[in-house]
Amino acid sequence: MTDELTLIGKPLPKVDALGKVTGETKYADDLAMPRMLHAKILGCHYPHARIKHIGTARAQALPGVVAIITGADLPVKYGNLPVSQDETGLAGDKGRFVGDPIAAVAAVDEETAERAIDLIDVEYEELPAFMSVEDVLTKEGEPIQDYGDQGNVHKMVALEFGDTESGFAAADYVREDTFFYQGNTHLPMEEHAVVAHYTADGKLTLWSSTQCPHYVHRALSKALAIAPSRVRIIATPVGGGFGGKSDPLPHEVAAAKLSMITGRPVKIALTREEVFYAHRGRHPVLMWAKTGVRKDGSITAMHFKTFLDGGAYGSYGVASTYYTGALQPVTYKVPTYKFEGMRAFTNKPACGPKRGHGTPQPRFGMEIQLDKIAEAIGISPVDIRRKFVVDENSYTVNHLRITSCALGECIDKVAAASGFNDKHRKLPFGKGVGLACSSYLSGAGLPIYWNNMPHTSVQIKIDRGGGVAVLCGSTDIGQGSNSVLAYTVAEVLGVSLDAIQLTVSDTDLTPIDLGSYSSRVTFMMGNAAIEAASKLKKLIMEAAAEKLQLPVEALAAKNNSIYCIDDERRSLTFAQAAQLAEAKHGGLGAMGSYTPPKLAGPFRGSGVGPSPAYSYSACVAQVDVDPETGEIKVEKIWIAHDCGRAINPLLVIGQTEGSVYMGLGEALMEEQDFRRNQHKIPSLLDYKSLTMMDMPEVETILVEPIDPEGPFGAKEAGQGPLLPVPPAVANAVYDAVGVRIDELPITADKVLKALALKAEGKEPRVGPKGVPSFVFPEPVRVEPHPQAPKLRGA
Amino acid sequence: MTDELTLIGKPLPKVDALGKVTGETKYADDLAMPRMLHAKILGCHYPHARIKHIGTARAQALPGVVAIITGADLPVKYGNLPVSQDETGLAGDKGRFVGDPIAAVAAVDEETAERAIDLIDVEYEELPAFMSVEDVLTKEGEPIQDYGDQGNVHKMVALEFGDTESGFAAADYVREDTFFYQGNTHLPMEEHAVVAHYTADGKLTLWSSTQCPHYVHRALSKALAIAPSRVRIIATPVGGGFGGKSDPLPHEVAAAKLSMITGRPVKIALTREEVFYAHRGRHPVLMWAKTGVRKDGSITAMHFKTFLDGGAYGSYGVASTYYTGALQPVTYKVPTYKFEGMRAFTNKPACGPKRGHGTPQPRFGMEIQLDKIAEAIGISPVDIRRKFVVDENSYTVNHLRITSCALGECIDKVAAASGFNDKHRKLPFGKGVGLACSSYLSGAGLPIYWNNMPHTSVQIKIDRGGGVAVLCGSTDIGQGSNSVLAYTVAEVLGVSLDAIQLTVSDTDLTPIDLGSYSSRVTFMMGNAAIEAASKLKKLIMEAAAEKLQLPVEALAAKNNSIYCIDDERRSLTFAQAAQLAEAKHGGLGAMGSYTPPKLAGPFRGSGVGPSPAYSYSACVAQVDVDPETGEIKVEKIWIAHDCGRAINPLLVIGQTEGSVYMGLGEALMEEQDFRRNQHKIPSLLDYKSLTMMDMPEVETILVEPIDPEGPFGAKEAGQGPLLPVPPAVANAVYDAVGVRIDELPITADKVLKALALKAEGKEPRVGPKGVPSFVFPEPVRVEPHPQAPKLRGA
Repeated sequence: MTDELTLIGKPLPKVDALGKVTGETKYADDLAMPRMLHAKILGCHYPHARIKHIGTARAQALPGVVAIITGADLPVKYGNLPVSQDETGLAGDKGRFVGDPIAAVAAVDEETAERAIDLIDVEYEELPAFMSVEDVLTKEGEPIQDYGDQGNVHKMVALEFGDTESGFAAADYVREDTFFYQGNTHLPMEEHAVVAHYTADGKLTLWSSTQCPHYVHRALSKALAIAPSRVRIIATPVGGGFGGKSDPLPHEVAAAKLSMITGRPVKIALTREEVFYAHRGRHPVLMWAKTGVRKDGSITAMHFKTFLDGGAYGSYGVASTYYTGALQPVTYKVPTYKFEGMRAFTNKPACGPKRGHGTPQPRFGMEIQLDKIAEAIGISPVDIRRKFVVDENSYTVNHLRITSCALGECIDKVAAASGFNDKHRKLPFGKGVGLACSSYLSGAGLPIYWNNMPHTSVQIKIDRGGGVAVLCGSTDIGQGSNSVLAYTVAEVLGVSLDAIQLTVSDTDLTPIDLGSYSSRVTFMMGNAAIEAASKLKKLIMEAAAEKLQLPVEALAAKNNSIYCIDDERRSLTFAQAAQLAEAKHGGLGAMGSYTPPKLAGPFRGSGVGPSPAYSYSACVAQVDVDPETGEIKVEKIWIAHDCGRAINPLLVIGQTEGSVYMGLGEALMEEQDFRRNQHKIPSLLDYKSLTMMDMPEVETILVEPIDPEGPFGAKEAGQGPLLPVPPAVANAVYDAVGVRIDELPITADKVLKALALKAEGKEPRVGPKGVPSFVFPEPVRVEPHPQAPKLRGA
Repeated sequence: MTDELTLIGKPLPKVDALGKVTGETKYADDLAMPRMLHAKILGCHYPHARIKHIGTARAQALPGVVAIITGADLPVKYGNLPVSQDETGLAGDKGRFVGDPIAAVAAVDEETAERAIDLIDVEYEELPAFMSVEDVLTKEGEPIQDYGDQGNVHKMVALEFGDTESGFAAADYVREDTFFYQGNTHLPMEEHAVVAHYTADGKLTLWSSTQCPHYVHRALSKALAIAPSRVRIIATPVGGGFGGKSDPLPHEVAAAKLSMITGRPVKIALTREEVFYAHRGRHPVLMWAKTGVRKDGSITAMHFKTFLDGGAYGSYGVASTYYTGALQPVTYKVPTYKFEGMRAFTNKPACGPKRGHGTPQPRFGMEIQLDKIAEAIGISPVDIRRKFVVDENSYTVNHLRITSCALGECIDKVAAASGFNDKHRKLPFGKGVGLACSSYLSGAGLPIYWNNMPHTSVQIKIDRGGGVAVLCGSTDIGQGSNSVLAYTVAEVLGVSLDAIQLTVSDTDLTPIDLGSYSSRVTFMMGNAAIEAASKLKKLIMEAAAEKLQLPVEALAAKNNSIYCIDDERRSLTFAQAAQLAEAKHGGLGAMGSYTPPKLAGPFRGSGVGPSPAYSYSACVAQVDVDPETGEIKVEKIWIAHDCGRAINPLLVIGQTEGSVYMGLGEALMEEQDFRRNQHKIPSLLDYKSLTMMDMPEVETILVEPIDPEGPFGAKEAGQGPLLPVPPAVANAVYDAVGVRIDELPITADKVLKALALKAEGKEPRVGPKGVPSFVFPEPVRVEPHPQAPKLRGA
């Protein structure tokens, strides 16, 4: 009985829910300080233009204007990835997209700052604009950045694992397809905001709605040349991030600089339009996929090419490029694999990480292609997946380590719940079902900073009154990391949740957590919290055992009590036992840390992908397509998600439903699109996303293998369930009306166009015609991991 | 060179000075919260009265009034000392002094609350009032409290160490004297204020200007029946405490209760008049002293009686009673000692701890009596003290352990600096000098809570950026404890002060520190901080040694660098070394604690007095007394203070000057006096204290023996230097005009009265005529500590 978990696995409320529903939670834009200034940012008027001169005299003369800065005030470049140090807070030499920040004004109020922005005179020299990968490959002109692999090509990757030529040769059926996944943005409810305060003691404090305070800390220390110990970043509660608040952003740098100049607190709250320009969202990706299978559906070889339209800056784009290849072999057994990817700089807001970071696009291509293959070789969409799921405790061909994998069970459950086999190819015209699967990572295993340093540490202090103070740099972006932290510590110590006092996401006060990205927080923070709490539990149990004159093994800790398992009357309260331990050892404090195992493979770039564990998802979408209008109504989504142990099933279901919501938006309507070199629709009125009315019923099935690496066996839940949704919808549309829409979003006009082609007897498909004849470098050849699937008989 | 201290001992600015001088520091009354209510308290109108009925209907009807509470809402008694659990937040059964809180109103603003207070109808039944110790011993009537040693006698103590009868028999000269030390109050610049917020999750948070957040925490948990882990006390920066903010006070309890009822934040800011009623200041003490000496001035026996006028509640009064006896034998060798003390409840605001807590009064009597004895036996005031100073590494007759003692050097230096021997008895009539000495404790060694638990813990976390987060429950009340904490950690780690980030005095977040009282903070927090920092330094030095391929002993840490002592070019930055250590060990966190040694003697009550170390002071006052008006002008104070190592000499000098200022106020003018059962002068206009114009030049001489127990050898500095000031002034007045004023304050009218007696040929003395014929219990007889001074030849 004592091994039964008390809090973990239970559908508890979030620990910070009350503040949110009562309005007590203070978001960054709720902060106000005495003498606070408000600042606004001037964005570049051209997609690509040299800045010849910025005249600030008229703006400076406006009463209420306190300070104006331009790129000249922020010359030092910074960036998150060491290979992409290309940002400066405000662009100095040239603007690289319409909206690229080039100047900022601090004034006594927002209106004055706004008026002053209009009084800044900028003299531009327009340069040729590159608005697509095709532009980059065909158009002449000054490159957008002065670094990268060649011209406007930011990054090229070419890797071959095993001998794909032999793999294709061994196949009974090979097909090639092209796909396009449109870019889209995160659309968080909370617009980004920051308050910076540089005090007279030379200390800079930022309260920012950021997912990654430690990265902002590092960037500001560099960009502003302040010692790291003199920069403090406090992440305010984040009203949605989805990756869009994980880069250090120009408004954070500008607010800091303005505060340094004025000595006053400075707030910058982005408008919704500015959030569209801040972006760092989903890359538009053009893809080419070639897959060979035997008659039974087993894959013999895969070759995948991706072309990423990156926008004007690096952001995490190098990682995004690798990610478009890395996770393809993680779901089904792939014995040989070749990946080529490139990312181009274009004169648009920078793309970066959005929920699923680089993996929904290739997954879209792969799962549609599998659907086509299954049909071609005459096996069911279920079988082509189910029979070849990767093994537990194995490696992929590209050296990724699989610990637990319940994808088979996910497929079985989602097929059964949806009645897939009874519906597929059997529903009336206009109705259809589609299946797709996916996998996602639980944080990255690659080293951050030099050495293999902890990715998360948790510090705990226990009071003699029984209170437990928990400090961690983790940032709750709505996913519930505060709650997971509290549940975990309370579970280990056997105390009730109301004994836990959290302090999080403050780079001065809390030990490091790298940030809320890569689905890493529950996994890494959870392991660190278990370690810290376990150290203290040991001391407390020993002190209790001594007092109760029992061996430690005879005791259990639950419900704020330490008691004898065989005689619960022999007990101490948790506070009493803690006091005894404190009297023996001094103050009860402990630090726990988690450093992921070294998992990188023997090749450059292998750092992207390695995760201590992988989640798995299987999704069935059922659609109703109106052949008259092309309108798609998604009737229901069934999704099974292998998240390892669900720390709180309510939160996992919430994350899954949110992922489905976002995946459906990307599948059906969202697009960060450009017309005449400008963002077409930078407003909530025009940018289309699902409303409540568009949202179908979602049936979530949690599949919970206990992962050996995860805290209590947990793996990721926040991003993975998005991945199978768009291809499941595309496959369902095909099942409903027999047309292939090989690009996102799948809008009514595309369906109608495909239906028209079908009626004309042409290939009933809308999608890219092909990919550019871009010459990738000779691939790096890597021996498959010895435990990877073998190419039989090749 | 490497053992040289970099920060400790240097006259550095306070780390929080900037916020104070710029106005950025937020005191409790600066706090404002959305929907915050303001509350006012109704004080009892009679000194002693049963409360028959409280009618709140008229007050409740006033628009803007939100809640009213009375004693019925707060029935649970609390108190700091286990033996004095006699307070209830609001008095229920009866009021015990004019101003005793009996009801509280929360309203939308302060003015409405104030108006509502006037609309509360209280029906009283007046009871006989006891306004002095004499009243208590002679007057009939219902006792004020329903507990205590007998009637209105709260506490009686009687102890005899060694055989005083033999001691007096061995004396060549014995004299008896009586003295009176008037009560006075702390007079902090900041009036007490609190904001309480009970949130919907059942958590109570208080921001209060308290010296002892952990005691408030304990009291509120008891009084309001909330689990300790659901009560959080955050001490706001305290604008002066001096002991007056160390008790949990009624306004804190009332604000908390009103917030619990309303669910809204509630502020109570006391008026200056209410601060006089909150009080807990200096007890008025009537004293009788009998001392026997040999011809050489060596003491053979002392017998001391004290009568404390305690006010209406216990507060720390039991401790105060013991303190009027405990420290008398700590300065000079005393081989036999008898102490009898009693404390009476009276119908006045409760007395408690004020700077020096119970020790300035007996020290006043003792040092005047020594002056009289010296004259009588014909030796100098210097010699009677200097020759018999206690030994280092010895014990007193009442079992107090002396570690370091530089009182001899203090006397030498202060005598030399003032030219005492050339002035005493040699200045013209009207001018005089007086000498007095004293000792004070550095915190208490007695166990707090059960078991011998830490009195302070400090938790530290080091960032890979080199930042050092330091958490401690200590509370800066202006004495500079924040600075001492920062200096200490920075010194041990070899980092600059700007790398230190402090979080203090928050019962949830910070490990315990018992509070800013008993001159304990530098000593105990300092030792805890050294332990915590040393643990981390060890890891960092080892990691650096490994990297530099040098033995740890070859390295030093200073100025944010770890370097080879013999070749400073071989070095790492502190941040680099911390990163290496973090990579090896995980997050760098550590807890350090300080638990004082068990020092109590073999008798009940021995817990009061035992301190890990004692400070020593010697003071010379030079006065000019106008025989026409009786006016005393203090011309100069020389004070030498043995504080062990001065962590920051500027701060110690500040504490010393502040103590002199306060001691002079008590000597010359301050009195918490009552007329017609009411406080005579509860306002800053009428209560007299020294202005800048009254303040003489102070020459402070720091004497710094390195104490073996103290952090870097430090002892106390904040209270001790007050003690010798009043008797030095009294002795100087005698030297100037030949009259003995044996009671405080020494006002002009008393001087004139004594001069008139002198002119009439009567004993030129103003002071109490005697003490009550109170029968103390048979004293507990205690063998002197074996290492205590021996009675020679008795």
